[in-house]
Amino acid sequence: MGERRGGRNRREDAAPARTAPRRGLRNPFAPQSFLSADEIEGIHRAALRILAEHGIDILSAEARALLRAAGAATGPDGLTRIGPEIVEAALASAPAGFTIRAGEPAHDLDLSPGALNFGPGAGCPNATDRRRGRRAGSLRDFEELTRLAAGLDAIHIQAPMTEPQDTPPQIRHYAMTRAQLSLSPKAPFVYARGRRQVEECFEMLALVRRLDSEGFASAPHCYTVVNTNSPRRIDSAMAEGIIDHARAGQAVIVTPFCLLGAMAPVTVAGALTLQHAEALAGIVLAQLARPGAPVVYGAFATNVDMRSGAPAFGTPEHVKAALISGQLARRAGLPWRGSAGTASNAPDAQGAAETSASLWAAVLGGAAIVIHAAGWLEGGLTHSYEKLILDAEMLEGFAELCAPVVADEASLALDAIGETPPGGHFFAATHTMDRYRTAFHEPLVATTANFGQWDEAGAAEAAERATIVWEARLAAFTPVGAPAERLAALDEWIAKRAEAGGAPPGD
Amino acid sequence: MGERRGGRNRREDAAPARTAPRRGLRNPFAPQSFLSADEIEGIHRAALRILAEHGIDILSAEARALLRAAGAATGPDGLTRIGPEIVEAALASAPAGFTIRAGEPAHDLDLSPGALNFGPGAGCPNATDRRRGRRAGSLRDFEELTRLAAGLDAIHIQAPMTEPQDTPPQIRHYAMTRAQLSLSPKAPFVYARGRRQVEECFEMLALVRRLDSEGFASAPHCYTVVNTNSPRRIDSAMAEGIIDHARAGQAVIVTPFCLLGAMAPVTVAGALTLQHAEALAGIVLAQLARPGAPVVYGAFATNVDMRSGAPAFGTPEHVKAALISGQLARRAGLPWRGSAGTASNAPDAQGAAETSASLWAAVLGGAAIVIHAAGWLEGGLTHSYEKLILDAEMLEGFAELCAPVVADEASLALDAIGETPPGGHFFAATHTMDRYRTAFHEPLVATTANFGQWDEAGAAEAAERATIVWEARLAAFTPVGAPAERLAALDEWIAKRAEAGGAPPGD
Repeated sequence: MGERRGGRNRREDAAPARTAPRRGLRNPFAPQSFLSADEIEGIHRAALRILAEHGIDILSAEARALLRAAGAATGPDGLTRIGPEIVEAALASAPAGFTIRAGEPAHDLDLSPGALNFGPGAGCPNATDRRRGRRAGSLRDFEELTRLAAGLDAIHIQAPMTEPQDTPPQIRHYAMTRAQLSLSPKAPFVYARGRRQVEECFEMLALVRRLDSEGFASAPHCYTVVNTNSPRRIDSAMAEGIIDHARAGQAVIVTPFCLLGAMAPVTVAGALTLQHAEALAGIVLAQLARPGAPVVYGAFATNVDMRSGAPAFGTPEHVKAALISGQLARRAGLPWRGSAGTASNAPDAQGAAETSASLWAAVLGGAAIVIHAAGWLEGGLTHSYEKLILDAEMLEGFAELCAPVVADEASLALDAIGETPPGGHFFAATHTMDRYRTAFHEPLVATTANFGQWDEAGAAEAAERATIVWEARLAAFTPVGAPAERLAALDEWIAKRAEAGGAPPGD
Repeated sequence: MGERRGGRNRREDAAPARTAPRRGLRNPFAPQSFLSADEIEGIHRAALRILAEHGIDILSAEARALLRAAGAATGPDGLTRIGPEIVEAALASAPAGFTIRAGEPAHDLDLSPGALNFGPGAGCPNATDRRRGRRAGSLRDFEELTRLAAGLDAIHIQAPMTEPQDTPPQIRHYAMTRAQLSLSPKAPFVYARGRRQVEECFEMLALVRRLDSEGFASAPHCYTVVNTNSPRRIDSAMAEGIIDHARAGQAVIVTPFCLLGAMAPVTVAGALTLQHAEALAGIVLAQLARPGAPVVYGAFATNVDMRSGAPAFGTPEHVKAALISGQLARRAGLPWRGSAGTASNAPDAQGAAETSASLWAAVLGGAAIVIHAAGWLEGGLTHSYEKLILDAEMLEGFAELCAPVVADEASLALDAIGETPPGGHFFAATHTMDRYRTAFHEPLVATTANFGQWDEAGAAEAAERATIVWEARLAAFTPVGAPAERLAALDEWIAKRAEAGGAPPGD
């Protein structure tokens, strides 16, 4: 090997990197059917019965009024009962797919059937890295993680990777939106934390994108994730977030978080029946607010540890629920949002195994977008800089799987095989020399160093090597955000609003 | 959560464990097609051309004679050229599936189409654990790893998990066979290290199984793995191992180890063309030795790091090669052997991610058996006690995925959903109480402890917790091997042969 290694090294400077596309991915896997079409239909009908007979608690008068105007009834128990015809009408008006416009066309997010996209771990109150330890998320962490995700090609949208807890709540949405628009060309996220904040986020986005309200509403330019309060409740911020995003033509991912045995039935089929009912309720609300509004069927069902009630991720129950959720989304005719995750407290073997299993489940389930695909630890309580890099390596591997295998005559290499004698090797074959520089996927962290080399070099495990990767990437990062003059206008706008007191959550 | 946790704990003593089957698995996933039927046919035809026009170097006069008797020709270059009609005849006589008889019928290994089995990491010269460190494999390590694998329900066959380097080569096969037959009820492995050793291993097995030579040959009672010497060579030990196992009706897994860019072409399609040619040559030899002999189409193609020439595992190239190898095995009408693996030097996130990716590829490729599915580190140079446990947890997860999801009326939980008010929870629901004790998969190592609990308890990462698991299992292990009187007879037999000098490898 030694000589060959030398031979390679002398070529290193000249070696161009592999350039397989990591955006605009199409899912290369055959869809899986873990339940029969009849069983899927059975869950769909059961969910319709829950909405029609048991009803759902919607904590927004405007939302209830919209539903009643469509024929739903709010009973003395306060629950709103939604008939099957209302649901089917909503599924008929909701688009099967759509595109979210990003800061640069190359980063537009295609959510049409067959598309595959990944989003980073989101909503984490804490942040952690091996240099500074675990802490409450800060604006600095939010901006650093946004920078790192902006530079990772297999992460396709922005997300609130950690919560900037050091920024006052009434101006936090200014800082988060400003950071997203200034640091990354990818499609931004808007929190549904009250109508004023949502409205202001839309205003900031329209200002920076140079769009009037009509132009802004003509296509999705951002997205939000709405979580129902399982079981059978949608609170006012969520309900009004659905309404306001739908009316503004912005994307809503409706995601019940159904924990088997806790906030949902203990069986996979039961939890998915509840999930389906709640997702459909949110989708109905969006379609009533604006027929044709861009919505995504979200799914995040997994089990809890029945000894502690703590959620588990990447478990067989999580995988099964994901594969069947993909079937339910196809039945609904909507793009599906899958969810990766891990309960691990460290970027270790448990973290990698659980994130990997849930990623495979989302991909095999046909997810148009996989949320929490990189960086999550502790079931989402912490965003880890090292885990972000380690998981991004897996996502870049999935992107590589989307590049078709070439099997033409040249790639079959019949001549090279004929020319290489038994017991010989292909290192020096012309067929190899012509291709080796760009033949293989290049990992971010993985090493093939043998034990001796690795041990002498300090025996650094993957998480330690990931620290070096994110530090180098942060140091070398150059923002690809909106033009300076537009950001200046945004800063002026923000300064005025902040001076006026900002917009507290829930307003 | 506190109260609920207490509630659970009071029930712990009574809680029965989940009993989803971990043996006799049927693959629940739809087969994947990464190449079209035409492209698969193109690789098959190209492989036939290699065998017919370029030929293969077979370093056994008896093997060459068998092939010539079937119409093949050995040229002045020493290479034997095998015509397509000989190959197609062999594929016609080879069984599409078969069963390897184990020490107990419950452990018989079903290799029929649709079956899914896992074998532990094999052939590792070294062994390592966090207590004793990395060392050359010893008989003690071989026996300890055999014990651990015997107790892991999702590991379905035995394998030479590490090499007992402290046992003299001429009697090593006695010790390895004795350990397998005395410690585990699962089907044993025989090394093809010379005709005398193979013959003696068959004798020992027949003696312990109480079979005459006819009874022994009437069904496979063990298996071997034959690696071709890529490119285009089968050495004498391998060729004669194929012949002797086939004649004795024992299972042969023919596995070319095709490293893209090293011992095989740099392209996935080219490496698989070479792999297919070499696998077919071995399968032809087995069928000529005994038509209908039980053979498995083995595949282990992955890329190397082109900077060092070192093999990589669990890479996108490995995954693609595995999925397409599954298609080639289906074209050949044979059970397929897939291969998991990692190049990591530690049971860390890289190790978990690479083993997981290669496991998913083997499962999605339709592998009847996945070799090296647990314990491998350093690309197979070391068997890790901790990695064995961590990987077995993944295998038990795959076993769980093979258990169908129930979607009958009771599991849809309509009543429980109706009875549980919005904002309520299902912990106390009758539907939950009736099921929670056995509802969920129980991991070996994964924890859902929150960060505070975990940190206070010492912040042990997955590999550290795996140490505790294997130590406890070794301490509690009770062998389920052959009856004592049969082992006594075996020991007597071994003593005589050892006294006579044993059987050196290669004889």
